[in-house]
Amino acid sequence: MLDSIPSFTRLVAELAKFPGVGRKTAARLAYFVLRQPEADADALAEAIREVKKNIRFCSVCFHLTEDDPCPLCTDPGRDERVICVVEQPQDLLAIERTHSFRGRYHVLHGALSPLDGIGPEQIRVAELLARLKSGQVEELLVATNFSVEGDATALYLAGLVKPLGVRITRLAHGIPTGSDLEFVDDATVFRAVEGRREL
Amino acid sequence: MLDSIPSFTRLVAELAKFPGVGRKTAARLAYFVLRQPEADADALAEAIREVKKNIRFCSVCFHLTEDDPCPLCTDPGRDERVICVVEQPQDLLAIERTHSFRGRYHVLHGALSPLDGIGPEQIRVAELLARLKSGQVEELLVATNFSVEGDATALYLAGLVKPLGVRITRLAHGIPTGSDLEFVDDATVFRAVEGRREL
Repeated sequence: MLDSIPSFTRLVAELAKFPGVGRKTAARLAYFVLRQPEADADALAEAIREVKKNIRFCSVCFHLTEDDPCPLCTDPGRDERVICVVEQPQDLLAIERTHSFRGRYHVLHGALSPLDGIGPEQIRVAELLARLKSGQVEELLVATNFSVEGDATALYLAGLVKPLGVRITRLAHGIPTGSDLEFVDDATVFRAVEGRREL
Repeated sequence: MLDSIPSFTRLVAELAKFPGVGRKTAARLAYFVLRQPEADADALAEAIREVKKNIRFCSVCFHLTEDDPCPLCTDPGRDERVICVVEQPQDLLAIERTHSFRGRYHVLHGALSPLDGIGPEQIRVAELLARLKSGQVEELLVATNFSVEGDATALYLAGLVKPLGVRITRLAHGIPTGSDLEFVDDATVFRAVEGRREL
């Protein structure tokens, strides 16, 4: 029956390519597009095209940007001596939202994961090393995720960076704000005890 | 920070209009679009535009179609004497997938819900009545959902249709295939006992 409405079938197939969107969800989204006013559907189609056309990666830090180098890399108010390295642009945005960091960034676009065939050549490690070797950088703050891949990447970077005489730090690991100790997972409690600080 | 990449912000805002898609999911989908090859993003944008351009509602049954009247309404192999009335096009497709029904359809595009301001004028009831009054129809199979709104719509239709001398039936209510009685909700068990059939 769906064969009689090929443009609908095609839209469902395209939407089902999204991560975490199966065939049923895709159909629900497609019905929503159908019910939207034409102007709204056009705006969505246009936004998809624009994003591909306008957004590139910053040639310095590899964050998303419309201007190259990106505003974060050209902002004179940011400290050139500290680089925060993250896995994905989303991670950078999460840190920026907190206004807790005023240095530069470097986006790896991934983390080491040998089982998935992702080695140092598949992520932006060489470009990071080149920046560190320029000599201005005094500290590298590793903000990769606290997953097996993020941990592996942090360790790998530490091995590369220490010989350059650059200080290497990592985000604190511990109990999140607002948590009940009782319900926090064991690995987190273990790391929180291990990383305890003087009051 | 997101302000420096307006086309990205715009795409996130457009995607967040989808039902069940919040700001974080929209950002995840937008990153996916960014990472797709340009051809894939174009295909998605094109599919959205095409669906709005090509798909209309059948003027007879109000199902989605590219040709009016739709293939279901013009298929000579389908029985004109039975109309199955559903709330949404998705419901029609769910029935078609089972090949259990070979009559015509009528899509209401909603169900009665006075609290949401949806009365008979907001859904395709008048058009259904006009079809029934044409005289060919002998049975109306009500396949609205088994929700408060679907039940109300079924009752309302029964009141309208009985005076026309048209037989009105509803999908059987009962235990779904593969269920353990123990885990089926009470309302379903109640209706299954009430609707028991001779073996």
